[in-house]
Amino acid sequence: MSDSTSAAPTLVTRMIAEAIGTLVLVFGGVGTALFAADFAVGSAGTPLGVGHLGVALAFGLTVLVGVYAWGPISGGHFNPAITLGMAIAGKFAWKDVVGYWVAQVVGGLVGSTLLVLVGLFGPEGWLSTAQSGGFASNGFGDHSPGGFGLGAAIVIEILLTCVFVLVVAGSTSKRAPVGFAGIAIGLTLTLIHLISIPIDNTSVNPARSIAAAVYGGVGPLAQLWVFIVFPLVGGAIAGLVHRALLAPAMDRLPA
Amino acid sequence: MSDSTSAAPTLVTRMIAEAIGTLVLVFGGVGTALFAADFAVGSAGTPLGVGHLGVALAFGLTVLVGVYAWGPISGGHFNPAITLGMAIAGKFAWKDVVGYWVAQVVGGLVGSTLLVLVGLFGPEGWLSTAQSGGFASNGFGDHSPGGFGLGAAIVIEILLTCVFVLVVAGSTSKRAPVGFAGIAIGLTLTLIHLISIPIDNTSVNPARSIAAAVYGGVGPLAQLWVFIVFPLVGGAIAGLVHRALLAPAMDRLPA
Amino acid sequence: MSDSTSAAPTLVTRMIAEAIGTLVLVFGGVGTALFAADFAVGSAGTPLGVGHLGVALAFGLTVLVGVYAWGPISGGHFNPAITLGMAIAGKFAWKDVVGYWVAQVVGGLVGSTLLVLVGLFGPEGWLSTAQSGGFASNGFGDHSPGGFGLGAAIVIEILLTCVFVLVVAGSTSKRAPVGFAGIAIGLTLTLIHLISIPIDNTSVNPARSIAAAVYGGVGPLAQLWVFIVFPLVGGAIAGLVHRALLAPAMDRLPA
Amino acid sequence: MSDSTSAAPTLVTRMIAEAIGTLVLVFGGVGTALFAADFAVGSAGTPLGVGHLGVALAFGLTVLVGVYAWGPISGGHFNPAITLGMAIAGKFAWKDVVGYWVAQVVGGLVGSTLLVLVGLFGPEGWLSTAQSGGFASNGFGDHSPGGFGLGAAIVIEILLTCVFVLVVAGSTSKRAPVGFAGIAIGLTLTLIHLISIPIDNTSVNPARSIAAAVYGGVGPLAQLWVFIVFPLVGGAIAGLVHRALLAPAMDRLPA
Repeated sequence: MSDSTSAAPTLVTRMIAEAIGTLVLVFGGVGTALFAADFAVGSAGTPLGVGHLGVALAFGLTVLVGVYAWGPISGGHFNPAITLGMAIAGKFAWKDVVGYWVAQVVGGLVGSTLLVLVGLFGPEGWLSTAQSGGFASNGFGDHSPGGFGLGAAIVIEILLTCVFVLVVAGSTSKRAPVGFAGIAIGLTLTLIHLISIPIDNTSVNPARSIAAAVYGGVGPLAQLWVFIVFPLVGGAIAGLVHRALLAPAMDRLPA
Repeated sequence: MSDSTSAAPTLVTRMIAEAIGTLVLVFGGVGTALFAADFAVGSAGTPLGVGHLGVALAFGLTVLVGVYAWGPISGGHFNPAITLGMAIAGKFAWKDVVGYWVAQVVGGLVGSTLLVLVGLFGPEGWLSTAQSGGFASNGFGDHSPGGFGLGAAIVIEILLTCVFVLVVAGSTSKRAPVGFAGIAIGLTLTLIHLISIPIDNTSVNPARSIAAAVYGGVGPLAQLWVFIVFPLVGGAIAGLVHRALLAPAMDRLPA
Repeated sequence: MSDSTSAAPTLVTRMIAEAIGTLVLVFGGVGTALFAADFAVGSAGTPLGVGHLGVALAFGLTVLVGVYAWGPISGGHFNPAITLGMAIAGKFAWKDVVGYWVAQVVGGLVGSTLLVLVGLFGPEGWLSTAQSGGFASNGFGDHSPGGFGLGAAIVIEILLTCVFVLVVAGSTSKRAPVGFAGIAIGLTLTLIHLISIPIDNTSVNPARSIAAAVYGGVGPLAQLWVFIVFPLVGGAIAGLVHRALLAPAMDRLPA
Repeated sequence: MSDSTSAAPTLVTRMIAEAIGTLVLVFGGVGTALFAADFAVGSAGTPLGVGHLGVALAFGLTVLVGVYAWGPISGGHFNPAITLGMAIAGKFAWKDVVGYWVAQVVGGLVGSTLLVLVGLFGPEGWLSTAQSGGFASNGFGDHSPGGFGLGAAIVIEILLTCVFVLVVAGSTSKRAPVGFAGIAIGLTLTLIHLISIPIDNTSVNPARSIAAAVYGGVGPLAQLWVFIVFPLVGGAIAGLVHRALLAPAMDRLPA
């Protein structure tokens, strides 16, 4: 993946790559949830919507393709919890963390704003229904798709973000086969959504949660802190676990 | 991917490869929409049709397999908007653009004509129903699956074609891992369909739109210009963005 | 993929690999159609069966995993039409064609016989219902899932087998990236099923058609010739097209 | 994949990797079955649950991502039947078998216990319903999703575990392309679930069966021996078949 003749990307270029990737993540994942998950039954009898399975695939594919398209520039995080976990794991420079976070949050907000723009041209009442339904925000209790409580959201967000960041750290380690990390990382996000959409609509990514909540009304906004704090906690735990237990056998870290 | 002992493919050979790939794209993607998306419910209770999720997978897989099968010859565009965007990005020779466009449009038309041929042997009324339903053409307003207007189609086609071409340019850059571009590019087209079939039946490819519209009746033909112009606009923007912002860190372009 | 210290596989070893792979193809693909496609609706409201989409994935995955598992020994055909097409394309030795065909047909028959064995332990009437329903055989007219006629089956089998074999020949050519052929070939079979299960239940593989028809009763047996002849015709056309038009730019063939 | 400057992983580190991977397998696969397979119908008409297709994808993706994330440390078994089969095939050290088994069973139990923890915060009655329904355990007869008997479970578990372990052994052989084994192995588990969820809810992995049965009540516990014994039998047969018939052409084994 190295190319000695091209310049190392600057932080600004890497932030542009992170912003584009997070824009695609939000537009693609949240957009599939809003436009495509639920759709009418065809005249022969098949419901045409893509359901939670389609939403899980969409979120995963945004990351899979983003890692191959823009990962060569920025590493392909598109998620503040990954950036934090990789820094703790010793695989990302602390001085760039805040820049990545800003790019990710801005990119996500542009993504959800573009969804609103499309919705303005939707059928009568589409946008107001989407917004009053929470705009595919994360939530627990009354805002959980399956009626799961705060405790479930906390366990799910910590555990699944931890798994996500462990996959990122492991599949990009020195011992892993070159090039396959994008497939592994993207499909981990699909797996995570397959499990947990019914619990809390799946965050594991504060930038995604912020982007949806700003258009989702008071309820999602009041619960937003949960989907900022606990993904970051899960990512941090993964960084510690990888560094302490797994990295000595996988990575060459600075002493 | 290089092989010094085999001859470099001629433009004619590359055009044959582009025509075959676009034929497969249209026959596979539009064919799945027409034959397989909507189907009867089985006796145990499962609707057997593949729905929009199956159509999204079919379109993506046509490109994924086409890039591995015929990409070694032509680069695997199968889409005039990609050819334009790659030329603007400085990664494709301008002198070959028109040849590729001709091959793509011809290949797509052969693909949709073969669908008509299969339909001639369909059950009573199948073909006339498929044609009066638009033959899986792209459309907005009355021709949008979900009732979205022209503005939505314009935003979606520009944005998603731009993302598509950025993935093509990025995943084939010097810094990207070798061989994975076909997976990334194909699954981007799946992602794009997951999001936007309900909006305008998803184009991002003028050759696909032309191929369906010629058998879809007056309505789709009258709207066809939208699905020629705006995918090309999106591809062109991607070419500019890649060249200006991303290529300096990813590619070695001619000075 | 070469390993100079291990012996080149003998024809018998390669035939074992082809038989195992075709057994898996039939048991996996036809088995998913019989056991899993149609299933009851869950108490919350989701029909649990995998539908035609699941069957399409199952067939494709059998080939994808077979190419990685046993392709290193035999090349991973699992299909008489591929063996014929590759011989015509100049990429497979004619003297081994009959041995591969025998292995593929025997492997497929063992696969469908094992399905019958499982069915013997099924719920009351399961096996007789599966057999009277055709045992997931290929068919046209009254035996077509969607009511398509013989002409449709002929066009579909020739065209899609041709595409299939072109993908096999192209993705294993000297110019294609090493290792990705299994993904491309397997997912082509998924694509083919997505399009054409409603037409004729999708063959493109005489060994698969024979294996199902022997347990499917008089109707499928009487139509079986169609699904032997036309896949072979499609594979032969692909061999000719690849050799004449594409191979000069992709492969180093014997003079 | 080798890295001469990092230390070879100790058995303890490898056991940690196996435990994490099996935890993810159980939490992801069984969790998707419990939380997400069956869900309500959306207001437009699409049932939102992921069905058996989603469960099959979830199980496969847990292994696919686990092989890339933690396979570089432990080899990525996550399954006692794979460990046994690889030992018999001559590709894994007998002295480490028991350690791997302990790690896999413990990891699986932690995974199912975390599912119970999430369920404690579920809607009224969720956990007791999940447990009285068997907690997605494997079963036959009254505990088979489709009403298949013990004989069907025995044939399925032996045959499909045998196929699974043959894929593991073949795709990691010296002649197989480097890096693709994770894709092949993971998608084999998806294929296996596509076929056999209706038969016995699919084991092919004693650690997965134990983890679910301990929370599934008396019925699943009484049948648990079937899903310990026959996957191990299938794995052992695969080890013998690979060593005797396939390895001489694929692997360099110790004399």
